[in-house]
Amino acid sequence: MTEPFAFELHATDGAARTGVIRAPRGEIHTPAFMPVGTAATVKAMLPESVRATGAEIILGNTYHLMLRPGAERIARLGGLHKFMAWDGPILTDSGGFQAMSLAKLRKITEDGVAFQSHIDGSNEFLSPERAMEIQRLLGSDIQMVLDECAPFPSTEAQIEASLALSMRWAKRSKAAFGEQPGRACFGIVQGGVFLQLRKRSAEALIEIGFDGYAVGGLAVGEGQSAMFEVLDAAMPLLPRDRPRYLMGVGKPDDIVGAVLRGIDMFDCVLPTRSGRNGQAFTRAGTLNLRNARHAEDFAPLDAECGCPACRKFSRAYMHHVVRANEIIASMLLTWHNLAYYQDLMTGLRSAIAAGSACDFAQACARNWGTETETRAD
Amino acid sequence: MTEPFAFELHATDGAARTGVIRAPRGEIHTPAFMPVGTAATVKAMLPESVRATGAEIILGNTYHLMLRPGAERIARLGGLHKFMAWDGPILTDSGGFQAMSLAKLRKITEDGVAFQSHIDGSNEFLSPERAMEIQRLLGSDIQMVLDECAPFPSTEAQIEASLALSMRWAKRSKAAFGEQPGRACFGIVQGGVFLQLRKRSAEALIEIGFDGYAVGGLAVGEGQSAMFEVLDAAMPLLPRDRPRYLMGVGKPDDIVGAVLRGIDMFDCVLPTRSGRNGQAFTRAGTLNLRNARHAEDFAPLDAECGCPACRKFSRAYMHHVVRANEIIASMLLTWHNLAYYQDLMTGLRSAIAAGSACDFAQACARNWGTETETRAD
Repeated sequence: MTEPFAFELHATDGAARTGVIRAPRGEIHTPAFMPVGTAATVKAMLPESVRATGAEIILGNTYHLMLRPGAERIARLGGLHKFMAWDGPILTDSGGFQAMSLAKLRKITEDGVAFQSHIDGSNEFLSPERAMEIQRLLGSDIQMVLDECAPFPSTEAQIEASLALSMRWAKRSKAAFGEQPGRACFGIVQGGVFLQLRKRSAEALIEIGFDGYAVGGLAVGEGQSAMFEVLDAAMPLLPRDRPRYLMGVGKPDDIVGAVLRGIDMFDCVLPTRSGRNGQAFTRAGTLNLRNARHAEDFAPLDAECGCPACRKFSRAYMHHVVRANEIIASMLLTWHNLAYYQDLMTGLRSAIAAGSACDFAQACARNWGTETETRAD
Repeated sequence: MTEPFAFELHATDGAARTGVIRAPRGEIHTPAFMPVGTAATVKAMLPESVRATGAEIILGNTYHLMLRPGAERIARLGGLHKFMAWDGPILTDSGGFQAMSLAKLRKITEDGVAFQSHIDGSNEFLSPERAMEIQRLLGSDIQMVLDECAPFPSTEAQIEASLALSMRWAKRSKAAFGEQPGRACFGIVQGGVFLQLRKRSAEALIEIGFDGYAVGGLAVGEGQSAMFEVLDAAMPLLPRDRPRYLMGVGKPDDIVGAVLRGIDMFDCVLPTRSGRNGQAFTRAGTLNLRNARHAEDFAPLDAECGCPACRKFSRAYMHHVVRANEIIASMLLTWHNLAYYQDLMTGLRSAIAAGSACDFAQACARNWGTETETRAD
């Protein structure tokens, strides 16, 4: 018999929580950061290296995978885990966000979203039922409902209409998910920056009943304080005994602030994408390795980090390989950034368990100020 | 006291030889293949992964390193080994070949070669003395004389004049190398496809006296049979007790044929560059992973290979990541190709020791025929 999907809370510190998600493919200690493995690869990383950073779960993108290589093909090849050689849990999004942001000629109806592939222009369609079918074919451990993520800014009336559609889709998604022992289905709270709509969304989702609750439609331009305001309002509305996932967030200080407000799970392309752009997140702030000041610097990116970039290489080397557009620059900076994010999550979990989450957050913020480079010289 | 640079011959089989080069930074079992680490990185590989393929020595390119980040800078940073985190031996070329093939506005005089950097157009100059100074600054374990590699085809008179210059430069290079305990200086036999000129070149170099002898100016378009003819003529002219290095070669069958003729060392960008272009060298021949026939193939690239690509991933996955231009495609295919080249060298060394080099070569050739894809479909 397959073990059930379960969430256990170990400690709280104010609104912050630490615990563990138990899934058949492995435990996920929360608060957790999920590296993004868009097209069946966390870009510039081997799966064993992703694991070595401390990651216990990764995210896969339904939109990318349905277009290439295709969900049915991945199913024939034994599922996404086997295909990409990641044996830990995988969370997949529904594809809706990318269908609306990346695809061409998208059109939303009650039934779903029609769009053209950004790869070859092929006509595609995602309904709540198809989104869940794709995630099932991939073998996803945590599957997300299809929703509409309204653009920012939108009027309250626009958000309200979008939210109503998303809640009807949530119900259809849950029905389509059906029973999948050991796997979970998460709902997504929408409502933009309108707290009453967030409340209505949370209530509608709880009424349907999900294994976990995500907060969507944030980090789309509303700013950190508006985002935190939404979290302050929405977190108390969600069931205490289910994991809470803030989608697509964020910078280290976004994550710390959201953890203090009760979020358990995160995903973001920032550590991987920034790594490919020559940027390193460190305990002292963000570094732009392209900057000339690093050209003869013997120091590692971050003296407290145990990743291969920091153990073996100097900032001078990183500067050189970034300037020379060498693949190793992407490999090492991605590895470092993911290790930094995982170390940050480990620090948060320990601090919450010790009842010192606020102190930890303040210490992080102080240290980030010491070296942050806001732009290339 | 630094150990000397030494070469020990263990066994021969016809003209083929196996042995070991002992250098202070480590042993190099011959015949050896040296992965190319152009700009202080074997592209798409971490140094520990290069080592894991079985490589005992890598090659660094003087031309690339002198332009970026610069030889004096690397020296200030502790030398090339420390800079790029490779603690094994490094062989460096003289920079002449790339100065003549990559740079702009190159002009050769008796003194050396003036050229403009292909990166920023800066005016640069390489004399035999400067080429050796750069290699010393890098901390190279095996340093190559500056020579002129005449284009193919050239007339006998052109090659003769070029060769005369190269021999004068060889003498100046050796003088500039001076005494560097534990490090070696190799001469380069030139002479194109003209066997009398090859003989004259070998004799001139032996007269100067080098720690090893390279064969240059091959694999420039003359074809494999012409190349082998030059090796058949030149190998008997070289001292038996010094390593012999065939520069810039080659495809697996070039390497096998050259080993049978007495070559001990090779370097080539083929395994790394082909890896970045979706091509895999295998025991069954070369595969083009872009081809649609691999789209649902569960098989690994090469069932007998122990590299991460072959242990963890299917051809179907490799096809997907090649098509999607994912960095992991370059990482895995480069690793595989380097592992294949090293396995081939291991097989050659064992076969020579066992007196079965010809059988081994024939078995390789038979197997390569079984699956080679000459082009994308």
